[in-house]
Amino acid sequence: MKKHNFSAGPCILPEEVLNKASQAILNFNNNNLSLIEISHRSEPFINVMNEAKSLVRELLNIPTGYSILFLQGGASLEFLMTPYNLLSLNGTCGYINTGIWSKKAIHEAKSIGTTLIIADSSDKNYSYIPENINSQEQLDYLHYTSNNTIYGTQFKDYPKTDSILVCDMSSDIFSKKIDVSKFGLIYAGAQKNMGPAGTTLVIVKDNILGRTGRKIPTMLDYTTHINKDSMFNTPPVFSIYVSMLTLKWLKGKGGVEYIEQINNQKAQKLYEEIDRNVLFKGLVKDKDRSNMNVTFKLNNKELESVFDSLCKTVGINGLKGHRSVGGYRASLYNALPLKSVEVLVKTMQNLEKNNK
Amino acid sequence: MKKHNFSAGPCILPEEVLNKASQAILNFNNNNLSLIEISHRSEPFINVMNEAKSLVRELLNIPTGYSILFLQGGASLEFLMTPYNLLSLNGTCGYINTGIWSKKAIHEAKSIGTTLIIADSSDKNYSYIPENINSQEQLDYLHYTSNNTIYGTQFKDYPKTDSILVCDMSSDIFSKKIDVSKFGLIYAGAQKNMGPAGTTLVIVKDNILGRTGRKIPTMLDYTTHINKDSMFNTPPVFSIYVSMLTLKWLKGKGGVEYIEQINNQKAQKLYEEIDRNVLFKGLVKDKDRSNMNVTFKLNNKELESVFDSLCKTVGINGLKGHRSVGGYRASLYNALPLKSVEVLVKTMQNLEKNNK
Repeated sequence: MKKHNFSAGPCILPEEVLNKASQAILNFNNNNLSLIEISHRSEPFINVMNEAKSLVRELLNIPTGYSILFLQGGASLEFLMTPYNLLSLNGTCGYINTGIWSKKAIHEAKSIGTTLIIADSSDKNYSYIPENINSQEQLDYLHYTSNNTIYGTQFKDYPKTDSILVCDMSSDIFSKKIDVSKFGLIYAGAQKNMGPAGTTLVIVKDNILGRTGRKIPTMLDYTTHINKDSMFNTPPVFSIYVSMLTLKWLKGKGGVEYIEQINNQKAQKLYEEIDRNVLFKGLVKDKDRSNMNVTFKLNNKELESVFDSLCKTVGINGLKGHRSVGGYRASLYNALPLKSVEVLVKTMQNLEKNNK
Repeated sequence: MKKHNFSAGPCILPEEVLNKASQAILNFNNNNLSLIEISHRSEPFINVMNEAKSLVRELLNIPTGYSILFLQGGASLEFLMTPYNLLSLNGTCGYINTGIWSKKAIHEAKSIGTTLIIADSSDKNYSYIPENINSQEQLDYLHYTSNNTIYGTQFKDYPKTDSILVCDMSSDIFSKKIDVSKFGLIYAGAQKNMGPAGTTLVIVKDNILGRTGRKIPTMLDYTTHINKDSMFNTPPVFSIYVSMLTLKWLKGKGGVEYIEQINNQKAQKLYEEIDRNVLFKGLVKDKDRSNMNVTFKLNNKELESVFDSLCKTVGINGLKGHRSVGGYRASLYNALPLKSVEVLVKTMQNLEKNNK
């Protein structure tokens, strides 16, 4: 039985992408060599890298003046690279704290220089997005996390600021239209809407680099990777290839505009059921609800084991909430079909029927 | 036609490993989910990580007191992590310079603290390994590169030192027996004898850490990754899985002792032909010749195009020398069958027959 995969990440990828990736492991481009046993400096892989970059540029409608990089180390290494590359020696940076990932980013920035918390939703276990953020401070940059996977909150608008805007978009990039021109730096671990774990997408405005007066270690310097076209050292070949396939799939579907509509439908359907069904309750402020990660719980904890086994029966996978929040979390990333949401909704209704 | 893949890295992997990896992309462990769409915190992947670590421990006969990590960023990030973790605030570290990779490691160490060059073979374009290295200096550690992929040189013995010994073994780990107890830190990018690009193996002696007095950024601190069992952040799932498969294959073959014999045979056969054949010449000092990367050239450059097309005819791939050295380079990593070397030798003999 094919699973309904609601995993929060690494997460579901399109079936046709998995088929092509599987084939490329055996024989890439009909060249009788595996994708993972060719030189990253060979033409076939350079073509993959170029196609991946050009798909990113096209799908997100990226203006000129921005570089696109595929790096390693996940968002966690970007937490360090951001202040290294953008925080000047005597400067100040600002962060919006909307959860564990923001906190980790803040921790790294503090180890590099002066770091202000501009807004914070920790008082209610990050169950909302701070309102009316309007940072007036003189900041080298303002950093936020667009979607908070663990809690199920999501920014519906860009924070207002005169500073360079930096965003960790790991869990909602490519899920909806964004205006890249508003940002100095965007980064995202691949393992949600882009591909398998192992590579990090970085979109950086070239003219914000080289201004800090800071000595940056080679591998942490965006300029190193820009100058070498993400091939300063051996790139994570497989992860970049599968990301390219996934972006191609997205383009074929109709791009970000199309998938945003489907993602809205999926989220709406599930939130409607959570609000309608007397057994369930959403966990975050209505207007800040994420379209990617839907968090909810059973009002009666004793029904959990019944619901869990109903879910198992129909092939639902990865619905357990994060340990710091509890309850359930349904991740509705791009590759998750509407059908899977319908199966989940039906299962919630069946539970209600038998337990009114 | 199946290729004879002499690529310097990413390089040939065992066929049965490629078959299993391809299958796991479609359906991992018969669970109807792809390997690359499950949570890294799920039991199936935790089992993969544990098996990979235990295979490393067994194959290299690692004593207690060492941690085994699977990280990201390649050897290039280890160049930075090494001094961060091991060079004390007012201390000195030593490096043996045997090529471009050593030089890059030295560059990063210099950006962190006082760095001495203990020995150096740059005077003859790194065509030999410096002799009688016996570092008496008070060093926090002594670093060397065990095999120099670009030039085709390899250390046949461990440098003598009273300091902590650190080694970049990216291109010869798992190719021969080593005595891990002689080392404080060993690291290796996966993409030669271990698996696909995208993960880095680190073997570190626990009691050498935490001594520098240095503040280390979270992601660059080995202790972070030791404490979280290489899962501080999302690990490169696919690269670790395929590394595990490759190590399992090696164990099935008879382990490092067995493969060392085969590797010796392969190298001997090719070096014998280089020395015998009047058209060819080896590029490095005889006693320092690498068993992993065999560098050689044609005495008559005009024969290159003839030789290249002969190679192409029989399916030989990846034989071009590195641009800084020229000529040819045959990489004889673990997964390359003896048969491929025989085909190469035969091709060299055919060239000689027609061009005496």
